Amino acid sequence: MSAEPSSIPTPTAPTASTSAPRHGVWFVGARGSVATTAVAGCAAVAAGLHPATGMVTETADFAASGLPSLSSLVFGGHDTVDCPLPKRAEHLADGGVLPHGLPAAVHAELVAADREIRPGGPVPDGTDTVPARTDDDWIEVFAADIRDFVRRNDLAGAVVVNVASTEPAPTDGALPPSSLYAAAALRAGCAYANFTPSTGLHHPALADLAASSGVPYAGRDGKTGQTLLRSVLGPMFQQRALAVRAWSGTNLLGGGDGAALADPAAAAAKNAGKERVLADTLGAAPQGEVHIDDVPALGDWKTAWDHIAFDGFLGSRMILQTIWQGCDSALAAPLVLDLARLLVRARAKGLTGPLGELGFYFKDPVGDGPSSLGEQYTELRRFAARLRDDAGDSEVRR
Amino acid sequence: MSAEPSSIPTPTAPTASTSAPRHGVWFVGARGSVATTAVAGCAAVAAGLHPATGMVTETADFAASGLPSLSSLVFGGHDTVDCPLPKRAEHLADGGVLPHGLPAAVHAELVAADREIRPGGPVPDGTDTVPARTDDDWIEVFAADIRDFVRRNDLAGAVVVNVASTEPAPTDGALPPSSLYAAAALRAGCAYANFTPSTGLHHPALADLAASSGVPYAGRDGKTGQTLLRSVLGPMFQQRALAVRAWSGTNLLGGGDGAALADPAAAAAKNAGKERVLADTLGAAPQGEVHIDDVPALGDWKTAWDHIAFDGFLGSRMILQTIWQGCDSALAAPLVLDLARLLVRARAKGLTGPLGELGFYFKDPVGDGPSSLGEQYTELRRFAARLRDDAGDSEVRR
Amino acid sequence: MSAEPSSIPTPTAPTASTSAPRHGVWFVGARGSVATTAVAGCAAVAAGLHPATGMVTETADFAASGLPSLSSLVFGGHDTVDCPLPKRAEHLADGGVLPHGLPAAVHAELVAADREIRPGGPVPDGTDTVPARTDDDWIEVFAADIRDFVRRNDLAGAVVVNVASTEPAPTDGALPPSSLYAAAALRAGCAYANFTPSTGLHHPALADLAASSGVPYAGRDGKTGQTLLRSVLGPMFQQRALAVRAWSGTNLLGGGDGAALADPAAAAAKNAGKERVLADTLGAAPQGEVHIDDVPALGDWKTAWDHIAFDGFLGSRMILQTIWQGCDSALAAPLVLDLARLLVRARAKGLTGPLGELGFYFKDPVGDGPSSLGEQYTELRRFAARLRDDAGDSEVRR
Amino acid sequence: MSAEPSSIPTPTAPTASTSAPRHGVWFVGARGSVATTAVAGCAAVAAGLHPATGMVTETADFAASGLPSLSSLVFGGHDTVDCPLPKRAEHLADGGVLPHGLPAAVHAELVAADREIRPGGPVPDGTDTVPARTDDDWIEVFAADIRDFVRRNDLAGAVVVNVASTEPAPTDGALPPSSLYAAAALRAGCAYANFTPSTGLHHPALADLAASSGVPYAGRDGKTGQTLLRSVLGPMFQQRALAVRAWSGTNLLGGGDGAALADPAAAAAKNAGKERVLADTLGAAPQGEVHIDDVPALGDWKTAWDHIAFDGFLGSRMILQTIWQGCDSALAAPLVLDLARLLVRARAKGLTGPLGELGFYFKDPVGDGPSSLGEQYTELRRFAARLRDDAGDSEVRR
Repeated sequence: MSAEPSSIPTPTAPTASTSAPRHGVWFVGARGSVATTAVAGCAAVAAGLHPATGMVTETADFAASGLPSLSSLVFGGHDTVDCPLPKRAEHLADGGVLPHGLPAAVHAELVAADREIRPGGPVPDGTDTVPARTDDDWIEVFAADIRDFVRRNDLAGAVVVNVASTEPAPTDGALPPSSLYAAAALRAGCAYANFTPSTGLHHPALADLAASSGVPYAGRDGKTGQTLLRSVLGPMFQQRALAVRAWSGTNLLGGGDGAALADPAAAAAKNAGKERVLADTLGAAPQGEVHIDDVPALGDWKTAWDHIAFDGFLGSRMILQTIWQGCDSALAAPLVLDLARLLVRARAKGLTGPLGELGFYFKDPVGDGPSSLGEQYTELRRFAARLRDDAGDSEVRR
Repeated sequence: MSAEPSSIPTPTAPTASTSAPRHGVWFVGARGSVATTAVAGCAAVAAGLHPATGMVTETADFAASGLPSLSSLVFGGHDTVDCPLPKRAEHLADGGVLPHGLPAAVHAELVAADREIRPGGPVPDGTDTVPARTDDDWIEVFAADIRDFVRRNDLAGAVVVNVASTEPAPTDGALPPSSLYAAAALRAGCAYANFTPSTGLHHPALADLAASSGVPYAGRDGKTGQTLLRSVLGPMFQQRALAVRAWSGTNLLGGGDGAALADPAAAAAKNAGKERVLADTLGAAPQGEVHIDDVPALGDWKTAWDHIAFDGFLGSRMILQTIWQGCDSALAAPLVLDLARLLVRARAKGLTGPLGELGFYFKDPVGDGPSSLGEQYTELRRFAARLRDDAGDSEVRR
Repeated sequence: MSAEPSSIPTPTAPTASTSAPRHGVWFVGARGSVATTAVAGCAAVAAGLHPATGMVTETADFAASGLPSLSSLVFGGHDTVDCPLPKRAEHLADGGVLPHGLPAAVHAELVAADREIRPGGPVPDGTDTVPARTDDDWIEVFAADIRDFVRRNDLAGAVVVNVASTEPAPTDGALPPSSLYAAAALRAGCAYANFTPSTGLHHPALADLAASSGVPYAGRDGKTGQTLLRSVLGPMFQQRALAVRAWSGTNLLGGGDGAALADPAAAAAKNAGKERVLADTLGAAPQGEVHIDDVPALGDWKTAWDHIAFDGFLGSRMILQTIWQGCDSALAAPLVLDLARLLVRARAKGLTGPLGELGFYFKDPVGDGPSSLGEQYTELRRFAARLRDDAGDSEVRR
Repeated sequence: MSAEPSSIPTPTAPTASTSAPRHGVWFVGARGSVATTAVAGCAAVAAGLHPATGMVTETADFAASGLPSLSSLVFGGHDTVDCPLPKRAEHLADGGVLPHGLPAAVHAELVAADREIRPGGPVPDGTDTVPARTDDDWIEVFAADIRDFVRRNDLAGAVVVNVASTEPAPTDGALPPSSLYAAAALRAGCAYANFTPSTGLHHPALADLAASSGVPYAGRDGKTGQTLLRSVLGPMFQQRALAVRAWSGTNLLGGGDGAALADPAAAAAKNAGKERVLADTLGAAPQGEVHIDDVPALGDWKTAWDHIAFDGFLGSRMILQTIWQGCDSALAAPLVLDLARLLVRARAKGLTGPLGELGFYFKDPVGDGPSSLGEQYTELRRFAARLRDDAGDSEVRR
């Protein structure tokens, strides 16, 4: 990927008119596990080092959808921490998230992305090193960072994807950081997806802006593990007319996500999405709670136990239990790349507003759409067909 | 059900010609757990003693499909054992399959069905008390039993459903008992469904007969527990482009089914269905085995453990495990009632041949159709619409 | 035991002075699931209707220990609720805790015990129907109830066992109800055991009384499920020099216990015991939390999931998970009968003070003793030997 | 460890009489996962690179037992395969069994051990490249290899530990390879331990030899995962007087062990040990089977699921399930090092014959001893005390 050809003094002008367009992917939380895995993995798959396991957009249904190639993606983003991406990737390899040897193999791409990361903010504890800013100041700074990224890299445009740690649900009317970033995306004319439970565009103060922005957007809260399972098991019970009495769950996770979600306010934001999926697929919310425990010993790996008590014929009591042991970053990263590619293409095709067709990816989708994974997959494939060049919309062009 | 004041000398003649038609349900294996639960449960739900949990045909999508009411169903069947249905029902209540008190509450209906059970055969060990019969003799005797059942009870017709214990996969060309029963169903002009992994209509020698019979049929091998789960989890992995490496399973079950499946030949028949579902939904059969253990201590309850090793992005290794603790009879019985009602209606609408639209119910469906449960459910609802009076086919009539 | 000369007019006085002595078992929480199961089960086992599964004192090691026979036990107690024991037993049978038919079979014994239940108090919400009482008033009333029970039934004495719902951990110095009952036991000269996490005798204000009471006592917090498992798994890891990194647990339970423990203060009391067992057997408390969820759909059945992350040689990461599905009342009741019998005998042998040898039964044992179940079992068997007639202490006599 | 200082031309004579004695550890199966992990891990722990997690002999109870230090152990052995140990170690690191970087860190020790590996035999398919040998020929060749190892390295002696893949249970009277190696150990005057389910010394033809050999020996079949759990859970049920009805298990494992155990004859040998532990601790063998599946996708990691159906008070049905996810090599290697050290010391103390005190380590221990892990641990600690210098036996000396 991205040999970074843009030369001075004409960063926005490609030297050769025949060069293929390149597309920016701007991560909010660009130094986190998901972003690092996405950057490293995109390079590795593009280079043929690994198959594209977990990337739905690499399956046959999307072959004719005009999606940007993996090698055409250029990464950058905002973050409030400093750890360089190559070092972050080494940590992930030590924890078993990335294969040993991969950080070295894609070192150049990690370095390139690292150069495109700009300081985020405001940090919750108010220790920002910059002078006090209004919300609008922050939005303008962030939007300028994105525009500058596009211009310097001579990109056809950029999409913004929030993959930062979950922030606590806001308790007052103030715009939380995730909403400042979302507003900046719109101001910079970028398509936007929120892969986290944070507020992002779901803030009343941003409703008008979103409606008038003229860009497509998607979200909220990526469906990667326990909720992915729930989105297929819930419909199963409903389709078989079995009566779910109680659905209880416990999540154990370490890493940054575990610590962030140990904050009850952040956990509440995440759990709301999990419970919504059950209520939507079952018709009503069953008994049962969801716990999220920070277990540092588990590192980047997550274990989710679900216990489902249901009634069968004549009131017979039955139980299903599931235990999911996965790596959230490895589950999220390919979906994030999917979303980036789909948004790039949707923007090029002139689509605007909430993309309900991407409900397949989210716990709390924007727009309308079914709640069972199977039907969401059908919707996604219809969307893939709609993105084709011959589907009646305009082509991808710079 | 079954007020059935059968009078002499015309027990099958209703006193009033305006009475609603009644429909026969003829079980192969009429004294087994599934049949007993179906008979008792049909009576209980018809009487309002229990909700219709687990019966898909009682959901809104089927309300206008012209299905026969539960109270219009009259039960009979073949079996090789003698235990009277009321006693069998008591055993099931002791084992927790039926609610305590239910056998007493529906005693009249159990007695009525018990009167309509005729001796089955041939028993595998050759201890039949009747003179040696040819296959055709057996078929004729069975068909005569069914015709007699219909005539004496003045039924609009009958459907035959195989719910007997799994028989060993046949090793030579001979017709196994399940196929003799299936042939008898066709000869008696009855729609047929095979809820077991036994051969039934899936025998080369019956192919012509099935094709020319003019009746609808469905099967094979009801999807009630582990395979039900597999039919939603397999598509989940496929839709998310995750690479399933190995899918291993162990089933523990007691009761008659456990003993029958301790026979490796019978287990082989059952496992073939389970593995087919995986291969169909994943595109290829993964590593892993399936075990079926007879554990008498578990009685009618079954535990199925599945262990799925899959690869995510960049080869990360992940695991999903599921533990299903259910009562097979309670899972099967409502589906068997669904099938009986759907076949009655399909026959009345003049449908013939394999009903691929009923793949929702089976591990090894007849005809063509999708293999994921969600798509099968969509097919089933389309079928429900097709069965409506205004859907262009003939109405249900006697 | 207990001089307690039976007074005139002695309504329950045996006709022959040579009749075997009878022993009172006074339950705090006498209408709860555990007490009801203990009363019904004692009668059923004494009558030969069921084997003594779960009663350690019925094993060979205790045959010569001079324990009172099951048929010599007479039950009574305090409770704040009114539901008669026969009705309570029917509820337990409906929930699968007691076998169907058992409440009828032991109806006489349930009625007899029900007659010996006196009102408890004070109820937390202050709705007692009696005039305001001081702590000492309550203790005196309770002690008088117990003395009256012994006298009227012509008992050799009584032991008091707390099996009431867990009360919140007290936040001030006041005596909680469980401590009032405990003090009453001592004042009435009865041996005492606390099978719950409630305070009971573990209150500073009762320390002197306990020391001078001259009766044996045991507790606290019966070890029936998840903690029972932990008390054998913790030592396993320690003995094999494996490094437990995190031990996380979730308990799902319905019934009264589930509701009581949904109160965080009550859950805190219970969890303290669970964590103590881990810290004691592992040498240090690992990472991980314990959740107790009220899931009414589960009724009297409990599911406990434990997830243990441990390191092996060279830091290899390994996982053990356990899923325990049990009925707490059925697990607790035989142990409660064990304790009652052991305390009766210990009192007769003149033992006084904390019985550390009964640590086998408790999460938070009194006195000193090992924390692994195996060593506790060894202690218990030593105790059984000590209770023998020829072990140097006085015999059981009236 | 083992920089192999012994100089030419007098390899058997230490140059300095004050040097500490060194002790040989001769592995049957010296290129397998367990042996490789033991060699690499011994070096790593001796060098302070890792804590001694999983090594019981490094706990305080053994500090005064006069065990040889880890750095005094010199490794060699027999194997029928050629893969060099450093390469084997790299494979194990790729599979997550060894930490990345460890093979490089202990490269010298791996090379040294690799030089001391001699060809094993006879290979089952008869493709040995050497001329036909009688059993006695094989034994003599193997014994000579061991003697040569001791002499060239100037060792105080050697112990032989079988860690080879499980061989099929012999069906005739012939000596299987494991027994040839065991006989060779005795002939060379070495203490012997069999960590596998293979026959080893448990062959009638070796009984006299074992009795007269004058060396201590131990075995059979290391208790590392599912059976380790069973040896603590079985006693728990027995101590609590709970009635185990059925104990079922499934093991999934890849690697060489999975393939070897896919052979039903080999699996039968292994399962015999597992079932013996249950029968011994429970008093009778419960219902239930044990499966061992070869699942190559799992590599060196093993998953064991156990399902235990037990009855509580009044026949209440309860379930415990356990899921163990471990790495067999990492579990076995520290125990193998323990055994080597204990045998070295036992030999030096003049102990001979079966060491029943080492039952802690084995599914099928030699000699007499308890079957619960807790009691076995007590025995082991007593043995540790017996090994002390002041315990009345002779000291370790060359």
